[in-house]
Amino acid sequence: MLTDLFSPSVQHSLDIAGIFVFAISGALLAVRKNFDVFGMAVLAEVTALGGGLIRDVIIGAVPPAAFTDLGYFLTPLLATVIVFFLHPEVERITKAVGVFDAAGLGLFCVTGTVKAYGHGLGLVFAATLGLATAVGGGVLRDILAHEVPSLLRWDRDLYAVPAMVGAALAALLLRFGALDGLAYAVPVVTAFVLRLLAMRFHWRAPRAWHRRSAATEEA
Amino acid sequence: MLTDLFSPSVQHSLDIAGIFVFAISGALLAVRKNFDVFGMAVLAEVTALGGGLIRDVIIGAVPPAAFTDLGYFLTPLLATVIVFFLHPEVERITKAVGVFDAAGLGLFCVTGTVKAYGHGLGLVFAATLGLATAVGGGVLRDILAHEVPSLLRWDRDLYAVPAMVGAALAALLLRFGALDGLAYAVPVVTAFVLRLLAMRFHWRAPRAWHRRSAATEEA
Amino acid sequence: MLTDLFSPSVQHSLDIAGIFVFAISGALLAVRKNFDVFGMAVLAEVTALGGGLIRDVIIGAVPPAAFTDLGYFLTPLLATVIVFFLHPEVERITKAVGVFDAAGLGLFCVTGTVKAYGHGLGLVFAATLGLATAVGGGVLRDILAHEVPSLLRWDRDLYAVPAMVGAALAALLLRFGALDGLAYAVPVVTAFVLRLLAMRFHWRAPRAWHRRSAATEEA
Repeated sequence: MLTDLFSPSVQHSLDIAGIFVFAISGALLAVRKNFDVFGMAVLAEVTALGGGLIRDVIIGAVPPAAFTDLGYFLTPLLATVIVFFLHPEVERITKAVGVFDAAGLGLFCVTGTVKAYGHGLGLVFAATLGLATAVGGGVLRDILAHEVPSLLRWDRDLYAVPAMVGAALAALLLRFGALDGLAYAVPVVTAFVLRLLAMRFHWRAPRAWHRRSAATEEA
Repeated sequence: MLTDLFSPSVQHSLDIAGIFVFAISGALLAVRKNFDVFGMAVLAEVTALGGGLIRDVIIGAVPPAAFTDLGYFLTPLLATVIVFFLHPEVERITKAVGVFDAAGLGLFCVTGTVKAYGHGLGLVFAATLGLATAVGGGVLRDILAHEVPSLLRWDRDLYAVPAMVGAALAALLLRFGALDGLAYAVPVVTAFVLRLLAMRFHWRAPRAWHRRSAATEEA
Repeated sequence: MLTDLFSPSVQHSLDIAGIFVFAISGALLAVRKNFDVFGMAVLAEVTALGGGLIRDVIIGAVPPAAFTDLGYFLTPLLATVIVFFLHPEVERITKAVGVFDAAGLGLFCVTGTVKAYGHGLGLVFAATLGLATAVGGGVLRDILAHEVPSLLRWDRDLYAVPAMVGAALAALLLRFGALDGLAYAVPVVTAFVLRLLAMRFHWRAPRAWHRRSAATEEA
C-alpha cells in the first residue's frame, strides 16, 4: 500500500512527532488565552488531530485515526503536561517550535494527500484534503480560542501555500506512480523548506487588488 | 430519480450558478476582513460548498459532492479571481449580488431537501437539511471570518425563513409525489420571492417577548 | 443491547429531559445575544443535539439520532417557545436550570460513552466521545454565538471534569461488564453530584504553572 512506502513504524513515529509539535502550539495558545489545564488539553488535541479528523470524516474513514490509535491521543496530553510546567521555557524556544511545526506541516500535507487518494478521491481533491490535514487543526484551534484564524490573516508569513505546494507535488507524484521510497521525501521537504523560507523572509500573500477608487478610501 | 426532474445538465448549471454567487459573497467578506488571496479562496469555497458538505456528512453521502465534482470546486476559485481584481466594481453591484444570492438560496433549500429525502430521511429532517444546505455555508463563512453569524442577528432582513418555507414546501410536494417537472420550480421561486420581499421591505423576525420587567431594564 | 439497560421508554424520557434543559441554556444565550426567534431555535437545537451529532458523525452512525427521532428535534423548539414568552421568569430560576443542566451532563456523558463503545471504539475513545456528547453542544452554542467557549475558560466552575469522571467510570464499568441495571446510575449520579459540588463551592481547574519569570510579567 501507498502508506507503507516507509516502514509502518517510521511513518508512525513521524506522525507522532508532527502531532506533538502541533499539540505544543495548541497548548501554548491556551496559556496565552488564560485557559485552564483542561482547556489546554482540548486545544492541544484539537490542533494536533483536528485536520486528520476533518479529512477522515469527509472521506468516510470512520472511526477516524484519532479515535483508534492510542498514541495519537496520548501525545497531545504529554505536550499539555510539558507546556503546563515549562511554558515560559517553551515560549522562549518559539523559533525552534516553528521549525518543528514546519516539519509537521510538510509531513501532514503529504500523508493527508496519500490517504485521501487511497480512498479513491481525485488528485485535486486528494491534494485539497492534504492541505486540510495540514492546516485544519490550526483553524479549529483558533476558532475554539475565539481568534481570527491565523491561516487567513494577510499579516502572517505564508503557511498554507507551502502545504499547498507540497500536497500538489505529492498528488503529481502519485499520478505518475512515483511517490515511493525516497521520492516520498521530495514533497515533504519542499513544503518544509518553503515554510522555513517564508518565516525567514516574511513572505506574504497579496491582498485584493486595490484600484484608485478603493485606494482613495483607504487613504 | 428525483434529482433528475430537470435534465442533469440543467440541474448542474443551476447548482454551479448558485455556488458562484455564494462564493462571491464569501470572497467579498474576505476582502472586507483584509484577508489575503488565499483567505479569499478559502472563504469562497466554504461559503459555496459548506452547506452541502454538512448535509452530505450527516446523511452519510461521502465523499461529499464538493469533493467529487471538479466544477463545484473550481467555480469558487473563479469567483475569487473576479473579486480579487474587480472587488470595487462587485461591491458597487451588491444589490444585484443580493438578487443572485436569493436565487441560490431558493435553489439550494430545494435541492438539499430532495437529496436528503432521497437518502431516506423523514420529511421534517429532509427539510431541515434543505435549510442547512442553503444557509450552512454562510454560517461557516462567518465563523471562519470571526463574525457573529449574520443568519442569527435580529437586525438583518429575513434570510432563513424564506429558505425554511421553500424547504417545507418541497418536502410537502415530495410527500404527495408532486415535485416533478414544473412543480419543482414552485418552492424554489417561493423562497426566492420571499427573500426578495424581505430585502425590499426589511422584514425582521421578532425577538423574545419583553414583559414589563425586562422592558424596564432596557429603558 | 447495552443501551437497553433501562427500558427503552425510560431511557428515551431521560434523553428528552436532558435535551430540554440543554436547549433552554441555548435559547437563553440567544436572548442575551439579542438574536431573533429563529436564532433562538438554532441555538436551542445546536446546544441540545450538537454533542450527540458530533459523536454520531465520528463513529459513523449516520444519519445521526438527531435526524431520525422527531422527539429529539421538537423538544428544543418547545424550549424555544417557553423561553420566547417567559425568559425573564426562566432567567430568575437560573439556579434550577443549572441543576437540571447538571443532570443532563451526567446522563449524556454516560449514554455517549455507551453508544460509542457499542460501535466498537476502545474504552479511552468511548469515554472521550462520552465527554464530547455531554459538552460538545455547549461548545458549538458558544462558537455560533461568537463567545469564548465557556468550557475552556478558567473562571468558570468545573464543567468538563465531572463529565470526564462520569464517562471514565462508565467505561470502566463497561470493561468489567458491570454497567447493567442500577449500576448504570452510578456514573450518572457521580457526574451529577460532582457538578453540583463544583457549582456550590466554585471549584476551578488550575491554569499553567507560573514561575517567577512569568509571574513578574503579570504583576
